[in-house]
Order: sequence, then C-alpha cells, then structure tokens
Amino acid sequence: MRDALLEFSKTFLKAECSTVGKKEYEGPLSDYFDSWEKDEYFGCRSFDEAESEMSRRNINFLLSKARYSYGDIDVICGGDLLNQCVATSFAASGTGIPYFGLYGACSTIAEAFICSALFIETGGAHNAVGFASSHFCSAERQYRFPLEYGSTRTPTAQNTVTGSGAYLFTSDRCGVRVKNALIGRIIDKEITDANNMGAAMAGAAADTVLRYRAASKDEMDSFDYIITGDLGREGHEIAAELLRRQGFTAGSRFVDCGMLIYDAEKQDVHSGGSGAGCMSSVLGAYFISRMRRGEIKRILAVGTGALLNPNSVLQKKTIPAVAHAVCFERED
Amino acid sequence: MRDALLEFSKTFLKAECSTVGKKEYEGPLSDYFDSWEKDEYFGCRSFDEAESEMSRRNINFLLSKARYSYGDIDVICGGDLLNQCVATSFAASGTGIPYFGLYGACSTIAEAFICSALFIETGGAHNAVGFASSHFCSAERQYRFPLEYGSTRTPTAQNTVTGSGAYLFTSDRCGVRVKNALIGRIIDKEITDANNMGAAMAGAAADTVLRYRAASKDEMDSFDYIITGDLGREGHEIAAELLRRQGFTAGSRFVDCGMLIYDAEKQDVHSGGSGAGCMSSVLGAYFISRMRRGEIKRILAVGTGALLNPNSVLQKKTIPAVAHAVCFERED
Repeated sequence: MRDALLEFSKTFLKAECSTVGKKEYEGPLSDYFDSWEKDEYFGCRSFDEAESEMSRRNINFLLSKARYSYGDIDVICGGDLLNQCVATSFAASGTGIPYFGLYGACSTIAEAFICSALFIETGGAHNAVGFASSHFCSAERQYRFPLEYGSTRTPTAQNTVTGSGAYLFTSDRCGVRVKNALIGRIIDKEITDANNMGAAMAGAAADTVLRYRAASKDEMDSFDYIITGDLGREGHEIAAELLRRQGFTAGSRFVDCGMLIYDAEKQDVHSGGSGAGCMSSVLGAYFISRMRRGEIKRILAVGTGALLNPNSVLQKKTIPAVAHAVCFERED
Repeated sequence: MRDALLEFSKTFLKAECSTVGKKEYEGPLSDYFDSWEKDEYFGCRSFDEAESEMSRRNINFLLSKARYSYGDIDVICGGDLLNQCVATSFAASGTGIPYFGLYGACSTIAEAFICSALFIETGGAHNAVGFASSHFCSAERQYRFPLEYGSTRTPTAQNTVTGSGAYLFTSDRCGVRVKNALIGRIIDKEITDANNMGAAMAGAAADTVLRYRAASKDEMDSFDYIITGDLGREGHEIAAELLRRQGFTAGSRFVDCGMLIYDAEKQDVHSGGSGAGCMSSVLGAYFISRMRRGEIKRILAVGTGALLNPNSVLQKKTIPAVAHAVCFERED
C-alpha cells in the first residue's frame, strides 16, 4: 500500500491564482500570471510581511475569481519557507478559515494539493484552498545573506522565486480533477552544498517518478507533461539521467518549473528558479490554464523539496530531499 | 461544513510511545513514559541532532512495541519546532517510509493525528505513524538565548519539553479509535510577549472547544478529560475563564499537558511545560495508557500552537495561535 497511488474520485480544481514579483513578471511566463507587484515590499515594512501580503492578496484574488468569500471555504492549508512558516500563518490569520499548516520545503504546494484532496475525499470539506509561497528577499536573508551584503552566487545556485500560488479545490464536478497522488520518501544523496539544491532534490524527484510509474502500471505515456517543482538546470539534468538509467525517458515532456519561470540567459538566474513559490505560481498559471483551454489533457506535478536548514548545513549535515507527485486531468 | 466535525470511522490507535529527557522523567509522570535519556545530547554532537535521535529512537520503540517494521508503515507524518522542521526530516530520513511534513507549532501532534486519520479513512494507508517533538536545548537556542548565556526567565515563561511522542494508527479494529476532529481557526488576541505564549494560545484553545461543543451538539459531558497541549498555568486560567464566560465549565476535567508534566514548585518551571513534544509525549503516556487500562473512556485532545517566529516578535508582530481538537474513544 505504501507504494500504491492515493486514488481520488471527488476532488476537482475550481480555480487557481498566481501572484508574483517583478523579476518573475519580466520572465517568459509574463502573460500567464494573474497579478504581479513591482514593489518587493508589497507596500509593507519588512520582507516577511511582504510575503504574507503577497499570499493574502493572492488568496483574495483566487476567491474573487471563483466568486467565493472566506465563509465558503472549509479549510485552508499551506506553508512557506520562512522559519516557523510565519508568512503563511499571518496570511491565513484574519480569514477565519480553519487552518492546517504544512511544511515540505519547496514541495509544500504538492502537500497542499494532497491535503486538500484528503479533506474533500473524506467529506471533511466541500471547498478547500491549498497554497504556498516564497519571496526572494526574505529567503536570501534567511538562508544565505541579507541582500545588502551583495554576495555573489555560485553557478549552480538558484534564484528563489517571489511568488504565491493558491488553488481552490471543490467536491463540485468541474473542468479539472485531481486524479491521484503519491507521497514521496526521503532520499538523501549526501549532497552537502546548499548552493546546489537541485542536485540534492534530483534523487527524490527520480525516485518518486519511478515509484509512480510502477504504481500506475506504466500510464506514463499518457502525460502531456511530467513537471518537477524547482530542480533547476543542474538538478533537472541529473534527474533525467537517473530516470534514463532506469529505462524511463520523457524527453521534452519532462520539464521543470524552475527552468520555465526565468530566461536563464537574460535574467542572470544561474541554474533557474527555486522556492515554495516556484511550482505553486507556475503550475496553475502556465499548465492548468493551458489544460483549461484544451491544449493539454493530463499532467503529473512532482513537487520537490530540500529538507535542510541553515544550521544543518553549517553542522555539515547532508541535504535530504523529498518529492510528492499529483496527477491533474482535464474532464471532457 | 467548516464548523462540522471531521467524522472518522476506520481509524484506530494501535500503539503509542513517548521518549523524554531527564527533567521530564523526574516529574510527576515519571512512571508513564516509555523511555528517557539522561544525556541531553542523546549521544550526538548537537542539540538539533539530539532531537532527531530522540524521535528516531522513539519511532523505533513504537514499532517494536507493535511488532512492526518500517516496511509495514505506509506513511509517516509529523513536525517539530526547529527551523524548517529539520529534527523531523532527519528522523524520518533513512526509514524509507513515505513522509508528509506538517507544521502547526505546538499543535503539530494534533495535525499528525488528523493527517494520519485522513490517510487511513481514504484508503491511502493501512498503517500511519504520526509524531512530533521538541527539545529544551535546541528550542532555547532558537527561540530565546543559547543556554550558555544563563538568561533568567519571566514568571509567565514556560519550559520547552524535551520529548517525542509517536502514534501508530491503523485501519485494523483495535482498543482505541479516533472518533472525530475539528480543525481550528487562527485566533489573534494581539499578545506580543513571546514569554507569555500561554495567553496567546488560550483564545485559540477556547475558540476550538466552543466550536467543538456547538458541532458535537453538547456531547461535552461525555468526556473524561478535555486536554489542552501546552497552555501552562497562565494560559489555562485564561482559557478556563474564556470558556466560563460562554457558559462552559469542565472543572477538573479541563486539564493541560504543560501543567501535568512538571512539578511546578519543585522543578522551577514557572508556568509549566510547552513545546511540540509536550502534548505528544503526555497524551499517549498518561491518558491513552489509562484509557487502555479501562480507567477512562473518552477524551478530547486540543493541540495548541503559537504561530510566531523570533523575527516576527522582534518586528513587534502579534502572536496568532491555532488549536485543533481530536476525540479519542475506547472501544468496549
């Protein structure tokens, strides 16, 4: 059972919304995001508050797209990368919606999809919101250096996405359904370089894709895309190679949100985008919207997370990683 | 639906296990804990590693109590108070069990109960482990000051429990069942004193108990105990008063794990115990074991969490809080 898919039958995705920062808006997916903000403070006094404000706005926008109010939502679940997930708690505080906190590093949005589905499948919710965020400035201060230091970055480093993605799931039949999911195992490839998190997460992504392939009895060909969260260029190459060695190639159908969100050449982002806001903003804005327009039918979203903290790196610990897979499918 | 109980019908608690530190073992519940360790490093090089090691040992002990191995467990879910929940990820890493990370501050164990039940109810797991931990030394360094500073504590301050509690849930009918649960809303009483987290959490605890009372159509009299996680003496008094004003008194049936774990007089713990390890170690060791012996029949466990981080306090933000309720019942 641990290697079986979680099968869902009642969970549908009613709406999705993505709010991003200036750099993300200036990237190749510019036309797809629902809203963006040029002020990195989002009108607040600190970067922590800015991240909360971004998520709050994005959740409000999501609900207004669906013509719902806070009172219609039975549970909200999500998380972020800040210590003790404060961006999320302050965003959810004041909504009055029952709140379920998650932490899976950059895989948090996949946890939020799964958790929302579990609430809906058990009848615990008619409507559930799942969301996750990250903010370049708050993440730099927390994980690396305050921006004022002006430190340089290694070639394998990724750029934390300023972005928030929110998703409204419902038990009412509608366009896109959540078909099934697979919870990932923690994979530790003994990477210790916090500037190469793509490599740390690649093993977990490959493990989850291979377990999904086994559990789904080779349904892999039916996916228009197999989408990882934020492996970046480095991690994506490693994951593709690991999969190839196990006899699985998806070619151009195997894509990474961290590679799509920026123009690597023009935007000086080294290995690509990362962060809990990466897949959460890109998946809905770019892939689900194309699914709604009938361009694609079925995707596998593989949220990837590196389970480190700055202390664990200084203590010379390895970087364990996890990846969860969720299948979205268009209803015809 | 948002104010309705999540009803469970297939989730049973097969075994529980608590491992604590020296101070907790020297307290009034000494006889109840499954194991304890006098070395605050648990044989490791850092307090972070110590917390992971405590959880790892405790999970292994849980499984050996039930004669299960890692391979029998379909999913493990949990969290802790360290930045990015590293104690939990390093404890779960190496088990090979699919891992679902949670963060609800000190209410994390209640989230772990609920999440385990959701996996079992949907058929996503036969066997699920939920766990949470905290460690006095790692928490002091992270939230307050490194122990070496020898800073004094305010009278309302609580003592973070060194403890880990792990629970094995199963779909096989057995002694104790998880009957239902209620997800809490974030309540912000605008407390800004991080040394008075009991007061910050009291409003959330009272809100959840009152919502549970309304949803359960006044089943409250049937509970042998209504147990909060870690309000401490100060928070417990406030919560009791808030409940009294709404016409609900549970008298001596309303208890707090943070007040039970230490001898406040002799152990110099000011307002009592706190931390994600508080309810998680006390609930199983003291209450569930008494339930298994037939001394009590039905309890409501209200996990309480303060959703702050050290930065948010320095930024003069308030301390929002959340509480989730879970009903455990003995099968006759």
